[in-house]
Order: sequence, then structure tokens, then C-alpha cells
Amino acid sequence: MARLVVIGGDAAGMSAASQVRRMQPEREIVVFERGSYTSYAACGIPFLVAGLVEHPDKLIARTPEQFREKYRIQTMIRHEVLAIQPKEQRILVRDLEKNEERQEPYDELLIATGADPVSTGFAGEESKNVHLVNTLVHAEAINQALSSGGEVRHVLIVGGGYIGLEMAEAFLLRGLEVSMIHRGPEVMTTFDPDMARHVSEALRQGGIDLHLHTALEGFTHQNGRVSAVLTSQGSIAADMVVLGIGVRPASRLAKEAGLALGPKDSIRVNELQQTDQAHIWAAGDCAQSFHLVSRRPVSIALGTIANRQGRIAGINLGGGYATFPGVLGTSIAKFMDCECARTGLNERELKQLGRQYVQAQISTRTLPRYYPGSSAMHVKVLAEKGSGKLLGVQIVGGPGAAKRIDSAAMALHAGLRLDELINVDLSYAPPFSGVWDPIVTAAKQAMKEV
Amino acid sequence: MARLVVIGGDAAGMSAASQVRRMQPEREIVVFERGSYTSYAACGIPFLVAGLVEHPDKLIARTPEQFREKYRIQTMIRHEVLAIQPKEQRILVRDLEKNEERQEPYDELLIATGADPVSTGFAGEESKNVHLVNTLVHAEAINQALSSGGEVRHVLIVGGGYIGLEMAEAFLLRGLEVSMIHRGPEVMTTFDPDMARHVSEALRQGGIDLHLHTALEGFTHQNGRVSAVLTSQGSIAADMVVLGIGVRPASRLAKEAGLALGPKDSIRVNELQQTDQAHIWAAGDCAQSFHLVSRRPVSIALGTIANRQGRIAGINLGGGYATFPGVLGTSIAKFMDCECARTGLNERELKQLGRQYVQAQISTRTLPRYYPGSSAMHVKVLAEKGSGKLLGVQIVGGPGAAKRIDSAAMALHAGLRLDELINVDLSYAPPFSGVWDPIVTAAKQAMKEV
Repeated sequence: MARLVVIGGDAAGMSAASQVRRMQPEREIVVFERGSYTSYAACGIPFLVAGLVEHPDKLIARTPEQFREKYRIQTMIRHEVLAIQPKEQRILVRDLEKNEERQEPYDELLIATGADPVSTGFAGEESKNVHLVNTLVHAEAINQALSSGGEVRHVLIVGGGYIGLEMAEAFLLRGLEVSMIHRGPEVMTTFDPDMARHVSEALRQGGIDLHLHTALEGFTHQNGRVSAVLTSQGSIAADMVVLGIGVRPASRLAKEAGLALGPKDSIRVNELQQTDQAHIWAAGDCAQSFHLVSRRPVSIALGTIANRQGRIAGINLGGGYATFPGVLGTSIAKFMDCECARTGLNERELKQLGRQYVQAQISTRTLPRYYPGSSAMHVKVLAEKGSGKLLGVQIVGGPGAAKRIDSAAMALHAGLRLDELINVDLSYAPPFSGVWDPIVTAAKQAMKEV
Repeated sequence: MARLVVIGGDAAGMSAASQVRRMQPEREIVVFERGSYTSYAACGIPFLVAGLVEHPDKLIARTPEQFREKYRIQTMIRHEVLAIQPKEQRILVRDLEKNEERQEPYDELLIATGADPVSTGFAGEESKNVHLVNTLVHAEAINQALSSGGEVRHVLIVGGGYIGLEMAEAFLLRGLEVSMIHRGPEVMTTFDPDMARHVSEALRQGGIDLHLHTALEGFTHQNGRVSAVLTSQGSIAADMVVLGIGVRPASRLAKEAGLALGPKDSIRVNELQQTDQAHIWAAGDCAQSFHLVSRRPVSIALGTIANRQGRIAGINLGGGYATFPGVLGTSIAKFMDCECARTGLNERELKQLGRQYVQAQISTRTLPRYYPGSSAMHVKVLAEKGSGKLLGVQIVGGPGAAKRIDSAAMALHAGLRLDELINVDLSYAPPFSGVWDPIVTAAKQAMKEV
């Protein structure tokens, strides 16, 4: 049977490989992974640093050995793919242990190379105490630095996105002083500032030294160590710097092989996860997705999407047929007791698309006011002007607030209008919710503007 | 303007009255309420008994005075309506304070009489230490009995439904010994037994002396006090008995006035909340609802439905136009750390309707296994054989499990099929969920049977 080669041994690659194995017990499947780990929960890294997860092993869903033995997938770690040669249907691979290069043929190739952290572009970025948080290796480096005898007291986080939020919590839980710089007017740029301000406030109240409107401009560094971070608002001393300024699709191999690219240089794929070149597929953070609300291709690096795209690619590579309908831009994060989640489009995105919309924002409670543990919950609902079709929801609030985004995601996916949404029979009991669901209350408010 | 009379001053009645007031500032609105309270959170009663809510006042959303002064709604408490005379467009009312009867005319009448607890039919039920939990008066009676010096050590709860569960928790938190008898094979009859067994197990593990397959057969009583409960499995001694065996629509007035009735003698209404007689409307626990999955009328007594039906009736009575599309049978409850929720139809209901269905049940975790606080979560998904259309979801699990039912309710309302459901972009981050949503995992399992 045709030889399947997969580049990248994490979420998308291994989801696809396992799916093919389930459908084709005899298929030859070879995976090349540059690093030493396969299929680990990269999203769990901040919680490993926080000490909430005891050991890096807990984040590994399956080891290379398990893939080799249980799934009979030839899983080659420490193998870096250097080039794809589509005409010859082969790749050039370097064995990083033996330092040898060789060619490997494929009948079908899946690119699942993930995403690479964005570089700051400033000298000093490579210093020993400047850290990324994208791989288990990075997490281990941070943990090692923190446990080596009280040298680190003050951490500076660059970027107030999901990673920034989660790392701020992690360092607080480790008893450190934490500063954060963020370029925009509020943290969490994927939210509208009028919602994100509640998150900025929570960071400050949690003890984070937060600098908004503050851009990174360089590092003060000497002998491989950074002692301060230079910003548009002055210099901030720090014992450790963590970069959480985002990732970019790792699409260099695809680009050099002449594959068509989409937004942020993500690899262009169709609904089956096929690229524009025969026998080459792509899935995960390196590939584009179709946004179901904007109806445009987007590049979103998230584990859920990677797993689902990998599964779809696997079904098609395994002789079945499946399509990936697209994404809604759903995401969720928390800092201590402040949770936030969003789905669909925000105001900035709607304006960029030139869409006519209405919006409503409400502040209510996660639970009835009389019930213990009730806390503030803010909801913003965006809908199409005229039709009232739901376009997006943002939530910021206390424990239990954010996961409610899933009901909004279902409504968005199904294309519900506000007047339909407000009549859905949602669950109510005092330990779980007020009698009027907060999303419904916001939707009722927004209806007045439609 | 036409005189609006409302019978019943709780969720449905006061939602409607307030809605009309917002639309018609000058409308004459008169509400007759048999009891002394208006608009209180009846669902909060178990938590008042538990001591989680400090004072009964906290459960009162608005007092009769507030309705009179802020909303200019003539709110007559301690007034019992004795009869409706549709031809004469008037009602017969007794002022319970003055012990006087009088006639009151109406141009439009809204019946919002709620539901009455079902009687056991056994002598001794009226004893001082046998309690209902349907009104604030009942809650105060229980609290008084518990606080009068250690007389109550052992409480027996009849019925393992929502009220039974919540009261079991309340009495445990008050430090009492609790027994529960339940007629069926497992508690929570609105769930399938294969899911409800997890709830029975949680009750037992929580220290409840649980007797399943056990029917109430009478009371041992003397001098107005019950000393033991007689059951199909023998006698059980108790210092206090709490009845949680369900409610029935309070539709006697409507029946005597010749209005058409539906399931369980609930008042038949159309989508506008109109009864079959001119100028008479009904909303809340006394009225029927249309079930969107079975496509049949049902009688479900829940505060959310009452509020929403009241709002719809109010819009129509106030000169607007709105329809109540129907319900999904969504409900949620918890006992200590065991949460449960359901939406749509269960297997028993599907069999009764003769529907062809497939089902899948999975046991997974609320959070990734490596994340602190991760606990067991069981999900059952039911779908139409052939089409794969979602028919129902049941969830039992640890903290954070049950509220996820809302995304299933949205999917049900929108008529999603399993193959659509599994591709919805739901939220994921380790503090909130595993990378594969439990409902999606169950749906993927069920798809194999479609």
C-alpha cells in the first residue's frame, strides 16, 4: 500500500497518523519529528511551570515508543526535514543524532510542521534568561532556571495574549514578581478593548505590574544574560524574560517547495486538507482554516483545530471521505479567577470586513446574587444589522463564566438569529446560573438595535 | 385602556405584568396572589435550608410594595381567586385577611397559578413534621423545626428527583442524617437509569442512606407527628419527612371554567400563550409547553420556562407580537460534587414515542487528566437512526460537567446532526476542558451506529 510520510509528530500529525492506522492496519506510515517528543499537550506548558502539573511526562499523551509499538507507526524523532521535492515525491531528511542526511520517498505526504514563535528581532533575544514557552524543552529550561536557588525574583512577560495570561498566573503561583508589557490599549487583542479591559483590571488586581501601550524596543544584555528590557515607556529590570508575542505558521518547507500559501503564510488547503500540489496534504497550525463567520481563510494556531484537521486529513488519507467545515475563532483562557472566552468575530474584525453590525454589552452575575460564589460576568454580543444573525460573543467573568462560550459557538455554527437564540431552553438552577442566561440577556439587549 | 387581571404573583405572572407595564405605561394591571410573597426564587429554597443563603429576603426579587410603587401594578397579596367566569369576563376573589369575597371584572385575564405539590394520599401527610419545599413558607417551617434545639437528627426524603437531591445536600450541610426513598431503579427518573446510576452512587458515597425500588406506603403518626415512614421495603424511623414527589399544574380554576386542558391537566395554550377561550391567557407551571424534539405538548414545571412564557404573554397582552417556540426539556441539578443535566429526550421517552434511535455513552474527564481538579464525566448522546439528528444528551459528572448541557441544547434547538456537531469549534484550554469535548466524543461514538 502507498507509503504515507508525515512531517511533524504533534497534534495534527499524530492525529492523522493514528486515524490512518485505524482505517488501514497494514499501511506504511512514517513520521519525522525534529524534536524528542510526540503528541504532547503544548497547552499544558504554563501549568507545568505553575507547578500545577507535577512532571513533564504527564503532558505526553503518547511517546514515540508507544506509537511505534502499539500503532506500528515508524516514528523517527530527532529527524529534521530539510526539503520537500514534490516532482520526485520525496523529502530530504537529516538525522540530528547521527548528523546524516538522506532522501525518503513518499506516495502521500502530510505536512504538520506546526507554528514557530515570532522573533522580536532584537539583539539579546538569544540570551539564556530569555525564554519561549512553545515546547516542553522551553518549559524545562524555565523550570530549571527557577529551581536553581532564588536567582529569579522578577519575571517580565512580553505580550498580554493567552500565553502571557497563563504564564503570569504560573509565575505568581511560584511566588515571583511579575511585570507584563503589552503593545495595545488592553491585553487580549483578540477581544474588543471594552471587554479586554476587565482582564487588564484582573491582572492588576492580581498583582501584575502591567504596562499597556508599551512596545518592546530591545534588551540590555551582557555575557548572554538580559538584565533589563527596553520599552517605548522606558527600561524595566528583570531576572527572566518570557516572550509570548505569538506564533507564525511553520511553512518554510512548503513555501520552498512552491506550495500555495494563504494568510500569514499558512499553507493553503481545501476542505479535505489537500494542498494545491498532488499527493501533498497539510493540517494543524501550519495550515489555513476557513472562518465560518467571515467566510474567509484564516490562520489560527490552536490545539483543537490541529487535532480536528489532523483527523480529517487522516480519514481522507486512509481511504475515507471527510471535510473540515471551518472554524469560528473560539478561544478561552484564564488568569487566576478571571476567565475569558470569545467566538466569532469582534468589532475590529467586523469593521475590517465592512460588515454592518449591532452590539450589546451587559454586566451580570455568574450565579444568582444570593448564591455563594456568585461573581461578576460581562457579556458582549455582536449581530448582523437587519437580519439579527449572531456574529460573535465575548465573555469575561468569574469562575464558570467562560465555558458558556460553547453554547454561543453552537448557535454561531448553526447560524441562529438573536430572536431564535433568546428562546433556546437553556439549563437553570441556582448553583449553575441565574434564571435568565447572561448570553440571552445580552442577545435581548442587542435585539433592540437590530 | 383594557383592564388586565393576573392570577398568581410569581415568575410567570410578574414577568408578564412587568412586560406589559414596560410597553403600556398607563395600562391598568391588577395581580391577585394567594400567598404573601411575589416574585421569589422558589428554586433557591433548598439552598436557604442548607444555610448557603442567609435570609429568605435574599430570594425575593421584588416585593409587592416594589411592584405597586415602582411598576404601578396593583399587587393584591393574600387574595385567593375562587372562580373564573369567562362569559361575564370576571373572577370571584376572596380577601383572605378580611375574609370577604368580591367580583373583579377583566378585559384580559392571565392565569399564572403555578403548580401544586402532589399529595401522597396517605393519612399522616398533614403532620407537623412532614414538609413540602415548594414555597418560602415551607422553607421557613423547615428552618424553624431544625433550629429548635436538636430535636431533628434524622430526615427522610421521599423522592429522588431534583428537589430530593438538593434537599439531601441541604440536610447534609446542616449536619443531619439523611435517608431517601425512591420508587424507581435509580434516582433522577428524567435520566436513563444507566446514567442516573452515577447519581445514586454519589448519594451513597456522600453518606445518604438510599433506598431504591422503594415506594411510600404510609406514615406511622400520632399527635400530629410522624415517627416513621412505611415503605414497600419496611418501616424507616425519621424525625422529619420531606416530600419531593413532584408537582401538578394548578389548573383547577381553569378546568372549572371550562378551559381546554393538555398533558397532566396543564392549561392548553397556543404559541402566543392564549387559551382556547377569548381574553384568557395562561403562562408558567400551570400551562402546557410544546416539546421541540417530540413535537408534542408537555407539562414541565421550571422557573426558566415560566419566566419565558410570562414574557411572551406580556408582549402579546401589551400590544406586541411574540411566540414561544417551545422547550427541550433541559434541566440541571447537583448533589455535592456530583452534577447532572439533560436536554431533549431520553431512551424511555424515545421508546414511548416509537422513535428509531442510536445511542452512545462515554466516560471521560471534565479536565485533562494532568490538570488539578479533573474528575469523572459521563455523557450519553441519543440521535435519530438514519439521519443522525441529535435527539438528546445526558451528562453526569464532577464540578463543571453539567453546565455544558447548554451547548447540546443549542445544537438540539438548531436541529444539528451528529456529523455537524462534531465539527463545531468549541473552546479548549486545560483549565476548562480536554482537547476533545466530551459531548463531541460521545457524538463521534454514536455516529458509528447511525
